[in-house]
Amino acid sequence: MNPKVALFEKIMADAIREVFAQEQFPTLYDPARYILSLGGKRLRPLLTLMGADLFGSAVDKAINAALAIEIFHNFTLLHDDLMDRADMRRGQPTVHKKWNANSAILSGDAMVIEAYRYIAKVPPASLPVIMDLFSTTAMQICQGQQLDMDFEKRMDVSEAEYIEMIRLKTAVLIGCALKMGALIGGAEPRDADCLYEYGINIGLAFQLKDDLLDVYGDPRTFGKMIGGDILCNKKTYLLIKALKNSGEQQKKMLLLWLSASEFDSAEKIRFVKNVYDELNLKVITGNLIEKYYLASLDCLTSIRVSEDRKKDLMEFSENLMYREK
Amino acid sequence: MNPKVALFEKIMADAIREVFAQEQFPTLYDPARYILSLGGKRLRPLLTLMGADLFGSAVDKAINAALAIEIFHNFTLLHDDLMDRADMRRGQPTVHKKWNANSAILSGDAMVIEAYRYIAKVPPASLPVIMDLFSTTAMQICQGQQLDMDFEKRMDVSEAEYIEMIRLKTAVLIGCALKMGALIGGAEPRDADCLYEYGINIGLAFQLKDDLLDVYGDPRTFGKMIGGDILCNKKTYLLIKALKNSGEQQKKMLLLWLSASEFDSAEKIRFVKNVYDELNLKVITGNLIEKYYLASLDCLTSIRVSEDRKKDLMEFSENLMYREK
Repeated sequence: MNPKVALFEKIMADAIREVFAQEQFPTLYDPARYILSLGGKRLRPLLTLMGADLFGSAVDKAINAALAIEIFHNFTLLHDDLMDRADMRRGQPTVHKKWNANSAILSGDAMVIEAYRYIAKVPPASLPVIMDLFSTTAMQICQGQQLDMDFEKRMDVSEAEYIEMIRLKTAVLIGCALKMGALIGGAEPRDADCLYEYGINIGLAFQLKDDLLDVYGDPRTFGKMIGGDILCNKKTYLLIKALKNSGEQQKKMLLLWLSASEFDSAEKIRFVKNVYDELNLKVITGNLIEKYYLASLDCLTSIRVSEDRKKDLMEFSENLMYREK
Repeated sequence: MNPKVALFEKIMADAIREVFAQEQFPTLYDPARYILSLGGKRLRPLLTLMGADLFGSAVDKAINAALAIEIFHNFTLLHDDLMDRADMRRGQPTVHKKWNANSAILSGDAMVIEAYRYIAKVPPASLPVIMDLFSTTAMQICQGQQLDMDFEKRMDVSEAEYIEMIRLKTAVLIGCALKMGALIGGAEPRDADCLYEYGINIGLAFQLKDDLLDVYGDPRTFGKMIGGDILCNKKTYLLIKALKNSGEQQKKMLLLWLSASEFDSAEKIRFVKNVYDELNLKVITGNLIEKYYLASLDCLTSIRVSEDRKKDLMEFSENLMYREK
């Protein structure tokens, strides 16, 4: 791995360990410390540091913003897991399973507030614009989660609606993470906006890649069970596309599987995957990922810093695109 | 009613109606608009305006802070009702009853973010200190709610612990509402702190009065059912005091009633109220309310503005103390 990115990862891992470290009230803060300790890619805070670094700024100035992003992201996981009734997260029980629903609600609330406390610590000159960006993004994420839940009850979600949902639920936080870094790093507004758009495109590609890996990932490297989205009827890009592109008989069967309350898991995954195969959805989804990936590179190109400085981000996003987990 | 306070009430009622008024996403924002429309005393935002007015400032400067306080307060009601499984709020179904638990969680989250958006609109010179005060207060309220839930499982809550819990859950937001008004109104830090302490004392007295009215309120004026706290074993000041002051036999019977899963409501209320009567808790609680009320007046006295300016707040808090609902 790139030694600079490895250093940034270390900086963030150390900083995240300090969050809530001094707090008493174990019933309130243990669930928050727990979800923060589960790890994950730490993608978003890393992007904040890389955003600052892109404009030649020392990254320490961006650590508080990066922490705010990571705390907020983990808050959304905590509340989303409760709303989605998910039992496991990163191979461990979710907070509402390990504690209970009330703990998940209240500890999540405390995390939102803590995120804003870190936002308040960004360099004062950047505070108004960072605060505005953060709140706008946070609200969009709520809208994205609401759309995602609304989609559960619908069988006629269009591709455009789906892309809008993942833009709100996933991509805007990646854009926000990068843009905050850029603003703190002294970028001019136009360049900060380009980096935001880069993040949006990378974020869309990232989520579509997630959808794809759930079906076509390699079980040995993926880390999660293949077909998890299929089993819970998650409206992924592939399912939406399948509902749209399938023939009459195929669609009837697909809807039958989606409405079945008792079934053999392996059999359901096999059936749905077979429909995806017949409709060529691995290639179609791959092409769309490529489209957003290329669009992200265009955004990066238009940023007015030396090409040399952009290498880390390019390498990083390439790794994200060609990841197997 | 005091015409100035009536004007402030009108200003806030109009401003609250505008919150989320432009937002699409009915599934996300309807629950938030609903709980905000249920009314209530609008005590906290009114105190923000009165805090600004106390220092001779125009109150419009304080409207955004007042809205942040009211939105945050309603967010806590929304999530607390869900955590407490309360069916009714102000004579109407609670959000998780009218919609569902997920709506209550996510709309509540959106309200926290919206509260911060209004905080971001306070006069820039006050923003860092207001933001800090708001986040500190918001976090304390989470701690207070956690304590309240922790207390549900305990029969040995001390009076001091109870006072600390209501300080966190209720009093700090009243202190914060007033102090924000003072700061925006140009008060010196020392005076703003005195007004905060005034709010803490008023807030404690206010909650204790709530506890008292649940048992000794006049059913014709109280608006809610008498004995609601008794029926759900709520650890009010009176119950905590009763568990501590009761004799051996009395306590045994009290614990029996608290652990009963099937009982006649009227009979349970009659029994518990009788214990309170025997232990003279109406007078004891009344004395404690008086103590905090007098302490609040001391705080008000030490603020360096003309006595004339303090009249509205004095009258207002007197009304709160001698209210029958």
